[in-house]
Amino acid sequence: MTSAPIELQAARSQPDRAAVAKAIAELETSFGDRVVTSQAVREHHANTISWIPNQPPDAVVFPQETADVQKVAHICAKYRIPIIPYGAGTSLEAHINAPAGGVSVDFRDMNKIVSVHVEDLDCVVEPGVTRKMLNENLRDQGLFFPIDPGADASLGGMAATRASGTNAVRYGTMKDNVIALKVVLANGEVMTTSRRARKSSAGYDLTRLIVGSEGTLGIITELTLKLHGLPEAIAGGVCPFPSVEAACNATILTIQSGIPVARIELLDELQVRACNTYSKLKLPEKPVLFIEFHASEAGVAEQSERFGEIATEFGGGPFEWTTKAEDRTKLWQARHDVYWAANALRPGAQALTTDVCVPISRLAECVTETQRDVNESKLIGPIVGHIGDGNFHVSLRLDMDNKREVEAAERFLERLTERALSMEGTCTGEHGVGQGKIKYLPIEHGTEAMAVMAAIKRAMDPQGIMNPGKIF
Amino acid sequence: MTSAPIELQAARSQPDRAAVAKAIAELETSFGDRVVTSQAVREHHANTISWIPNQPPDAVVFPQETADVQKVAHICAKYRIPIIPYGAGTSLEAHINAPAGGVSVDFRDMNKIVSVHVEDLDCVVEPGVTRKMLNENLRDQGLFFPIDPGADASLGGMAATRASGTNAVRYGTMKDNVIALKVVLANGEVMTTSRRARKSSAGYDLTRLIVGSEGTLGIITELTLKLHGLPEAIAGGVCPFPSVEAACNATILTIQSGIPVARIELLDELQVRACNTYSKLKLPEKPVLFIEFHASEAGVAEQSERFGEIATEFGGGPFEWTTKAEDRTKLWQARHDVYWAANALRPGAQALTTDVCVPISRLAECVTETQRDVNESKLIGPIVGHIGDGNFHVSLRLDMDNKREVEAAERFLERLTERALSMEGTCTGEHGVGQGKIKYLPIEHGTEAMAVMAAIKRAMDPQGIMNPGKIF
Repeated sequence: MTSAPIELQAARSQPDRAAVAKAIAELETSFGDRVVTSQAVREHHANTISWIPNQPPDAVVFPQETADVQKVAHICAKYRIPIIPYGAGTSLEAHINAPAGGVSVDFRDMNKIVSVHVEDLDCVVEPGVTRKMLNENLRDQGLFFPIDPGADASLGGMAATRASGTNAVRYGTMKDNVIALKVVLANGEVMTTSRRARKSSAGYDLTRLIVGSEGTLGIITELTLKLHGLPEAIAGGVCPFPSVEAACNATILTIQSGIPVARIELLDELQVRACNTYSKLKLPEKPVLFIEFHASEAGVAEQSERFGEIATEFGGGPFEWTTKAEDRTKLWQARHDVYWAANALRPGAQALTTDVCVPISRLAECVTETQRDVNESKLIGPIVGHIGDGNFHVSLRLDMDNKREVEAAERFLERLTERALSMEGTCTGEHGVGQGKIKYLPIEHGTEAMAVMAAIKRAMDPQGIMNPGKIF
Repeated sequence: MTSAPIELQAARSQPDRAAVAKAIAELETSFGDRVVTSQAVREHHANTISWIPNQPPDAVVFPQETADVQKVAHICAKYRIPIIPYGAGTSLEAHINAPAGGVSVDFRDMNKIVSVHVEDLDCVVEPGVTRKMLNENLRDQGLFFPIDPGADASLGGMAATRASGTNAVRYGTMKDNVIALKVVLANGEVMTTSRRARKSSAGYDLTRLIVGSEGTLGIITELTLKLHGLPEAIAGGVCPFPSVEAACNATILTIQSGIPVARIELLDELQVRACNTYSKLKLPEKPVLFIEFHASEAGVAEQSERFGEIATEFGGGPFEWTTKAEDRTKLWQARHDVYWAANALRPGAQALTTDVCVPISRLAECVTETQRDVNESKLIGPIVGHIGDGNFHVSLRLDMDNKREVEAAERFLERLTERALSMEGTCTGEHGVGQGKIKYLPIEHGTEAMAVMAAIKRAMDPQGIMNPGKIF
């Protein structure tokens, strides 16, 4: 496989304009006013929330069922033009851009919760359902879906990008919470990746092949997801530490001790300052951990006490925790609002949020070196981390008119990724590759693994029409 | 992809005998007496523990490092002859058979624990390390690897077959506990599927593609595995129920309630009777659950009490539990010895253990219908289930000289699989496909998913030399 070219031809080339026009005409025959080609709608369906340029598709289609997506795929295959799935548009690495034009498939209208199986702790949903919609629907049944990437992303997009977020330390990532997928392939056929059974050893794990494939191997049109019972009790609180290292060491010991922490989030000093201002908190301006436990009443009390003892061992504390919903909500709202809080550090600036992930034993070193690098680069970049996973975000706020600053940010991003890779880490823990991290992938995986990925891509999408220009 | 033939040519054809002789001569030049061609050794390296015929390889090689496996792969690729990985030989579906001859690669000598990262809760091991070897090594460090399929299988084999077992309800299966793999590909090159970071969104999930691929896409030569802290306390016990249905309903409510049960195993009446005799227990001859909790001292006590209350709701109990290691060990030794206990039901008979998995809401119905079917078929087949996953085993004991009985068993196996599939289940929850379940795979997955699996197989193994005759 070494001789195979890693870059896929079709991913980069612009399709024939006449072919695009014919494809749109055929789409209009099938879909009527559910095909939109206005500039505003096309631009809205490309990247809008990072510094990667907006590259709009040629048309946007709003399917209502799997058969509609098949129709789109058949037309795109016939004219060899790209097909790009669109969920809620919250991707940070421009997964929804159309660098080679083509048709964006917006799942706005495919937002039904098909079924909830309470006894099996699973549900079947369409890809346009967002995580908040799902959880609102589940609450009365005492269930919840734990994956929480912050944004109210669509579940189809979360599966396609292998999203995770604050609860991953306890509940895993999308790869751990998708049971089966219905997928429209490049040839317009539909496959189901697995049965609804909780586990299986029957053949290749097509579910996990599609999770994280970013629309490059097929388009998800239905998801079967694991659910969890709402915990009897939830306790949460904040704990300050003298240093990032102390916070990391307390986290390592907590996890080693088997304390089943549900969320454990690091905010560095700058992020704490931003949150104090934006969310009207009064936290000490030190590295802090936001922590949450899910268990019985007695369980969360015991876990909170034990965590408090561990924090003290490392010079942290006091750990103030509560089971009161009101107080916890205020805290986690502040955690979810770190993006807006960081914006307020420099109003009007461009946000550039990136993520890397390293083994937790290297996390303190990686975060500390990164903070030093941010300062030496004269950038503004608070840090928030899903510390239990070794995953953290640097959220730069840039003046895009300042060339020096933009160049400094580019060099900083290169160094951040190199640093993570040199520590056995990955260039992205949860944001995905999209367009933004393509160049790091061969460095991370090496020639052979990249050749295997490319061979799979060619085998499943020989024309290269599935979300081209992403991953490869 | 629909037009592609699902059966892979090379998987079935016999290699050229002259090519085999040349390959063995080249292997002998490289490996000396680490190549063995004696009949006894070759037969030992094929299926010996199920009713599937023994199909020995042409030679067995004992590599000592990844580079050795590359050498074998290069030679096998040059002469287009099969290469079959061999771990501990405990597979139940004849994954290690050589239906088209070829070279068995026995990982006996690749059994080093390369590194243990206590802070990261992970380790790097060679594929010949067995789960018991690993756990003995880890105990002093307060860590353990939870996947326990019963047999002392090799970790390479467990990853290749996506094994799980008694702890899966709490800790997941091999797919959830493998972080990264080093894999020798069909062309003799080596790929690493992932970094050591706990999670990543960087490209296709090659780790999970290899886990469960049964040696048909590449040969695992190193594994990075997740570890867990040894629980502070373990409580376990047995609880009888008036019916399989009551036991299933109690299990469903336990899991829904968020009680983090570590093991919850169903034994049916016949299996209980067999265990009472073989393991000298005095359990009531009813469906029973073997249960285990891992938490703090207070935690396991609370969880045990709450489970006892749930059991009572469904007419079960008394639930007698203990944290004493001695008593728990006796119980779980009996659980591990169900195979031998079933043998004692009919000394000298052939064991035929199969597994299916269904959504837990259908489990009681599936087990009850299967018990009726066993009886009506005049077969002996106790049932043991990893009930929290909806997974159960029927362990037939057959007189292979009795044609009527063998035919009845074949028809029973067909019906068992059809029953599981009709309930949204899978033809194998944890044993894998091997040779034994090939025919069920297209029924379970459908044409499109099978075509995708075949396309991936062809892309990664164009000559069809990697463990041919398995899965496809």
